[in-house]
Amino acid sequence: MKIAVFITGGTFDKEYNELDGSLYFKKTHVPEMLTLARSLVNTRLTTLMMKDSLLMTDKDRKIIASACKKAAETAIVITHGTDTMEHTARYLAPQVKNKTIILTGAMVPYKFGSSDGLFNLGSALAYAQVLPAGVYVAMNGQVFTWDNVTKNKKKGVFQARH
Amino acid sequence: MKIAVFITGGTFDKEYNELDGSLYFKKTHVPEMLTLARSLVNTRLTTLMMKDSLLMTDKDRKIIASACKKAAETAIVITHGTDTMEHTARYLAPQVKNKTIILTGAMVPYKFGSSDGLFNLGSALAYAQVLPAGVYVAMNGQVFTWDNVTKNKKKGVFQARH
Amino acid sequence: MKIAVFITGGTFDKEYNELDGSLYFKKTHVPEMLTLARSLVNTRLTTLMMKDSLLMTDKDRKIIASACKKAAETAIVITHGTDTMEHTARYLAPQVKNKTIILTGAMVPYKFGSSDGLFNLGSALAYAQVLPAGVYVAMNGQVFTWDNVTKNKKKGVFQARH
Amino acid sequence: MKIAVFITGGTFDKEYNELDGSLYFKKTHVPEMLTLARSLVNTRLTTLMMKDSLLMTDKDRKIIASACKKAAETAIVITHGTDTMEHTARYLAPQVKNKTIILTGAMVPYKFGSSDGLFNLGSALAYAQVLPAGVYVAMNGQVFTWDNVTKNKKKGVFQARH
Repeated sequence: MKIAVFITGGTFDKEYNELDGSLYFKKTHVPEMLTLARSLVNTRLTTLMMKDSLLMTDKDRKIIASACKKAAETAIVITHGTDTMEHTARYLAPQVKNKTIILTGAMVPYKFGSSDGLFNLGSALAYAQVLPAGVYVAMNGQVFTWDNVTKNKKKGVFQARH
Repeated sequence: MKIAVFITGGTFDKEYNELDGSLYFKKTHVPEMLTLARSLVNTRLTTLMMKDSLLMTDKDRKIIASACKKAAETAIVITHGTDTMEHTARYLAPQVKNKTIILTGAMVPYKFGSSDGLFNLGSALAYAQVLPAGVYVAMNGQVFTWDNVTKNKKKGVFQARH
Repeated sequence: MKIAVFITGGTFDKEYNELDGSLYFKKTHVPEMLTLARSLVNTRLTTLMMKDSLLMTDKDRKIIASACKKAAETAIVITHGTDTMEHTARYLAPQVKNKTIILTGAMVPYKFGSSDGLFNLGSALAYAQVLPAGVYVAMNGQVFTWDNVTKNKKKGVFQARH
Repeated sequence: MKIAVFITGGTFDKEYNELDGSLYFKKTHVPEMLTLARSLVNTRLTTLMMKDSLLMTDKDRKIIASACKKAAETAIVITHGTDTMEHTARYLAPQVKNKTIILTGAMVPYKFGSSDGLFNLGSALAYAQVLPAGVYVAMNGQVFTWDNVTKNKKKGVFQARH
């Protein structure tokens, strides 16, 4: 089984710019994370964009949906900023059928030592391998269907909407 | 859904003894790993033993099997040394029915910086939530049934037996 | 020999706020750094302020100078943002005599994994123990006197002014 | 000022062998440590050996002494296992004159996350730049002359002999 991994940016991949003290994107850390994880999951990695999800537009979501539709793989993991992860999930659900799509991300950049990114990537790849077709969000070790998930921005965690 | 997490030791939880340069067990790192992961999975953690799995006896496996049988939870994750993980899986399979049991571990101690432990824990908790009853090994991002898994000791990875 | 360590903030002590993705100050990491370092240097730690050094005013520098003057110790290490470290050094030099004052900092926050902070703290404490009275900047493993140091902001390194 | 850095192994450079769970030497981490430290100290790095200092013989110490004597640099840092660091210091003292030699090491391998190595390297390079000719041990942020230092093996720290 092969899994398409689409990278879109988000906290997951942010880095610290030591010259000006800002946070920015350079390139994705997913390959080094999979190496560290000794992952043997058969994956195809594609960076679709490197964006803070607050800056994502429907044009960006169209690019993601298009990549999901075109993918030969029926299992897809999307790394995504947490702030609008639920919006992208809702955008994808009516458009991509017959594929298992797992959105995941991180609350702290992978490069910052105390990141949840590696844990989330492990759970997302697991869910992608065993869940039936549908669009899901995998965060905090849990998995939610696209129509029943929201980020609690005060607590910084994902929870069921209902 | 509540998951029982049984800790048995293994590389996962080994530490460096700076007084004599040896590797040893102090206490499990699973709680701090779940905190770092911002895990909201409902878990009950129990340390059954802290052993290098090469030193595990059938008496130890009996303790593990007993804990699995007594658990009120139907989903169980067992952290375990990698060297005999497949033996424990085979030991448990005929004894514990109607429960989803996921054995996982790490190739490098969690405390040593480049560990696969957090990734494996993320995938094990995910598999435990969605797979049907049975005994499984979750390593390298993949999942194997108890009767079709072996550690390739030359490569340090898990693979299907057949 | 006792060393007064005055903490003023700077990149050294910045943290990542996972709720809004900003960088901020919580409390200093110097105590945990000294523990990690197994430091047996006799130190007295005081947090004077927690500021980005770009936001430091002469009022802040007055507080630092005052703390240096009042200190019973003749060796002082000041953790400081890198952007105006040289300004504070020049401010202190004419005011505090007969004490060895070492300013140091970091290009990357200690909490972000790839920080130079622990190395700089090690060198600053060493210089504080052996250099004659004067005001110095210790960065990049090197030490500069207050009147001959500048930050090369393009390269993110400290160098002699002349 | 140029500093010769002689690498001899020790806990500093030990790694975890994930295939058999042992600790071993591959190659030194000093170059990556200096990069992480953004060090601009002018150094010449030479790996003389990669040994646990408990296994060091007088033949090994002869090699170290010879390298110190031959060095064009008058400032030298030696990374060394902590268990016999004081023996090597005593061996070198009568043989190498007119050079500042700083022995340092680590209680925990650099690769294991909670290492004192980076701090010690920072302090050793600082002491090497400013101390007068002599043989010293720099550990725990402190510096000791060769004739007044011993490792307290119960506490895992260095202290004055007298």
